[in-house]
Amino acid sequence: MPKPVVGFIGLGIMGRPMAIRLLEAGYELVVYDIDSKPEEALVARSAERGVSPKDVASRARVIITMLPDTQDVEQVVFGLEGVLGGIQEGSTLIDMSTISPLMAKRIAETAANAGFEALDAPVSGGDVGAQKGTLSIMVGGKQETFDTMLPILRVLGKNIVLCGENGAGQIVKACNQILVGVTIAGLAEALTLGSKAGVDPAKIVQVLSGGLARCGVLENRGMRMAEGDFEPGFRCRLHYKDLRIAISAGQDYGVSLSVTAIVHEMFKEMVLSGRGEYDHSGLLSLVQDRASINARKPR
Amino acid sequence: MPKPVVGFIGLGIMGRPMAIRLLEAGYELVVYDIDSKPEEALVARSAERGVSPKDVASRARVIITMLPDTQDVEQVVFGLEGVLGGIQEGSTLIDMSTISPLMAKRIAETAANAGFEALDAPVSGGDVGAQKGTLSIMVGGKQETFDTMLPILRVLGKNIVLCGENGAGQIVKACNQILVGVTIAGLAEALTLGSKAGVDPAKIVQVLSGGLARCGVLENRGMRMAEGDFEPGFRCRLHYKDLRIAISAGQDYGVSLSVTAIVHEMFKEMVLSGRGEYDHSGLLSLVQDRASINARKPR
Repeated sequence: MPKPVVGFIGLGIMGRPMAIRLLEAGYELVVYDIDSKPEEALVARSAERGVSPKDVASRARVIITMLPDTQDVEQVVFGLEGVLGGIQEGSTLIDMSTISPLMAKRIAETAANAGFEALDAPVSGGDVGAQKGTLSIMVGGKQETFDTMLPILRVLGKNIVLCGENGAGQIVKACNQILVGVTIAGLAEALTLGSKAGVDPAKIVQVLSGGLARCGVLENRGMRMAEGDFEPGFRCRLHYKDLRIAISAGQDYGVSLSVTAIVHEMFKEMVLSGRGEYDHSGLLSLVQDRASINARKPR
Repeated sequence: MPKPVVGFIGLGIMGRPMAIRLLEAGYELVVYDIDSKPEEALVARSAERGVSPKDVASRARVIITMLPDTQDVEQVVFGLEGVLGGIQEGSTLIDMSTISPLMAKRIAETAANAGFEALDAPVSGGDVGAQKGTLSIMVGGKQETFDTMLPILRVLGKNIVLCGENGAGQIVKACNQILVGVTIAGLAEALTLGSKAGVDPAKIVQVLSGGLARCGVLENRGMRMAEGDFEPGFRCRLHYKDLRIAISAGQDYGVSLSVTAIVHEMFKEMVLSGRGEYDHSGLLSLVQDRASINARKPR
């Protein structure tokens, strides 16, 4: 089968390296971003430039969106000069942004009515995963669409799983971000308690890594947390946004998420206190702050 | 060096198999429990019976306590007919119970004044680890005492770490229980959200295990949680108690533990609702209950 023309909308820290990988894998690309700079870099590598999401959609058979948030996807798909105005029958829209599962379902319903295919396919693995093509991709949609799109997804990621119907990819991504965020918060409280009680945090990381408490967060970030190194990595402001989606999904699907809600507030506090660009493991600094306040005695 | 006589106080689900391992390793044992049944089982295997903690302490050079809670240790050590009344100069008291770090420090101070040695050495790994001698042991105390007691500890566990001064073992155990409890709660919320949104929980477990969300809880319990199997394992009422110790340590050392506090309340609710004997992963059933309540509409 000849490679389809791919439209790529959203050339940020994730989208740009993904688009470059597709170019390097031999796909013809039409790109669009509200910022013209990253477009130019891709055009210099032989991508074509679209004038709008609508224009991109009309010139490609597969359209990938990689955008910051639910409203951005809504705007790019349903808005003026949006994808909907240009997409051809039989084309496929793959939204790889992390957004609300309900928006993913709304796009899929629209697709069914308008005669195109849709997948939600949020990723994890960060900019490094995007550059190396080692992203995990959580997909929601029809099996046939998934199978047809696999060659493209395999250029971008390694661990690619069809999780269920449309929206299931976003749901599983939300589950992932809940568990990672809550684990970070638990580890932050554990390390703060340990240090304040006089135990070397590196020792705590070592012991906890050997038992039931072992986890990816400890493995990837434990020692750096113990040293107070919060260089990103995955930023607090993004995890905050992802937990906002999770909390909102909890409202949509009728689930009380008490622990997630607290951790969501903690990430909000990170952003409000000017620490939105810290790695998400930097939540430790918030718990540490809270532990110091008791030193300020009333006069 | 000849093997010292070991006194073993507390022959419950953990203490009994540990005492048996010591007997089988050739240690002479004097045992005591408030319940005479487990004593009889050990006497049948050639252990001697003490009439009180004081009596055990006077007849042994190493005294191990393995008791349910802080007050039990306080009673056994400091109470009438307690260890303090009988312990010889130069003997060593190893408390392997999970209790308040401050009580561990109090015992160590008393030991320093009375001329005996003390270690806090709480474990993780459950009754299976106790039977197989594969417990993780988190130790607080002096390096020399630790070194001298290592042959005994090696009969009981595999991953044996000196975490710091007296109390450090209990602190690290509290850190461990915080991280495990919080992780379980996060996974419970993730799985409940996922199921209510129509995604197969087994699929969620599979995908989350492959990325940053991977953890010992997912590995050991994920699939059983997905199937609603809450057979213990480590019981909710014990994790509740351990988090009570963590919360109390947070007060003692001036650390605000918001997430741990919520999870502590959740385990409390498990106990109050008659689910104290569920495996701690059974916290999932609580989150599921909370998710169903929205189905009861007001009339």
